[in-house]
Amino acid sequence: MKKPVPLKYSYRLISHGPVTLLTTRRRGRPNVCTIAWVTPVDSDIVAVVVSDENYSFRCIRETGEFALNIPGRALLKKVLGCGSVSGEECDKFRRFGLTPIKARKVKAPLIAECIGHLECRLLPGYEKLAREHNLFLARVAAASVECGLFDTQWKIGDPRARTLHHLGGTVFAVPSGRPAR
Amino acid sequence: MKKPVPLKYSYRLISHGPVTLLTTRRRGRPNVCTIAWVTPVDSDIVAVVVSDENYSFRCIRETGEFALNIPGRALLKKVLGCGSVSGEECDKFRRFGLTPIKARKVKAPLIAECIGHLECRLLPGYEKLAREHNLFLARVAAASVECGLFDTQWKIGDPRARTLHHLGGTVFAVPSGRPAR
Repeated sequence: MKKPVPLKYSYRLISHGPVTLLTTRRRGRPNVCTIAWVTPVDSDIVAVVVSDENYSFRCIRETGEFALNIPGRALLKKVLGCGSVSGEECDKFRRFGLTPIKARKVKAPLIAECIGHLECRLLPGYEKLAREHNLFLARVAAASVECGLFDTQWKIGDPRARTLHHLGGTVFAVPSGRPAR
Repeated sequence: MKKPVPLKYSYRLISHGPVTLLTTRRRGRPNVCTIAWVTPVDSDIVAVVVSDENYSFRCIRETGEFALNIPGRALLKKVLGCGSVSGEECDKFRRFGLTPIKARKVKAPLIAECIGHLECRLLPGYEKLAREHNLFLARVAAASVECGLFDTQWKIGDPRARTLHHLGGTVFAVPSGRPAR
């Protein structure tokens, strides 16, 4: 079960630097790719880097929308899979056993198996940034999380709330269950 | 002891999303502030968000340079301290017991106690982005790490290589010692 997150806390879904699964829908067809280079820019604005060699780059440019889905540690194999093949020829939802569900504010699907979701619409006026650096600026239109794993921040005492953080190649760090404060 | 990191791997110092200590030097005076919103944009390009309410914002605009220093978990109190007071009136290096050392390519100092360093110069042509969204794009001119903690990626089996990842407020996640792959 998912519940909405107030937009003012939406940046906290990604401020600790987890890898994401970026989803799009172009010409009715859903796609997903693995994206590690993401940061909040404001409480409800994100910056994401998507290589122009990726099919998702074209999907974002054409539709002006995407969703960032945050996988828990259990999805490691799917995260690696979605980062290793192109969605141009392959239905990665089917291939990697991911379930697309309807988003509230964008046409891009959310991924049922993920623990957090940011529904994003491109900010107008930054085409040059996308063209030159593959960098997209987008406003978060809606955010949601798996019930019980996030109040105003991730509850990493629960193993399901532990995310994947890209160290390089196919290797990721995972938060320990004890937050530092 | 620090050693250089080849620029092609420099993005891996931050691709897992650690909080950073951003340093500047303006009119001969070093400053440091805590910055969580950072992402690689290319193997040797970074994007960082620094609020225009921060003294560091002005330092970056005026000097065109900064360094990103990556603190290990042991520096938590200093990270919180550097994020809670302004460097306009206060020498935060002295106040929080941090040691400025000379960088190789920029005038901004590095922080001896940190485990990784990216020396950065602003990319020209993105003044609007800084003005409108507090977002700076910069090229990494040099990168270095504490010896033994990074080869082509962080060796998080060593507790000293475990970084701080901002969950919200004064709470951080810390990677466990077991990478997922």
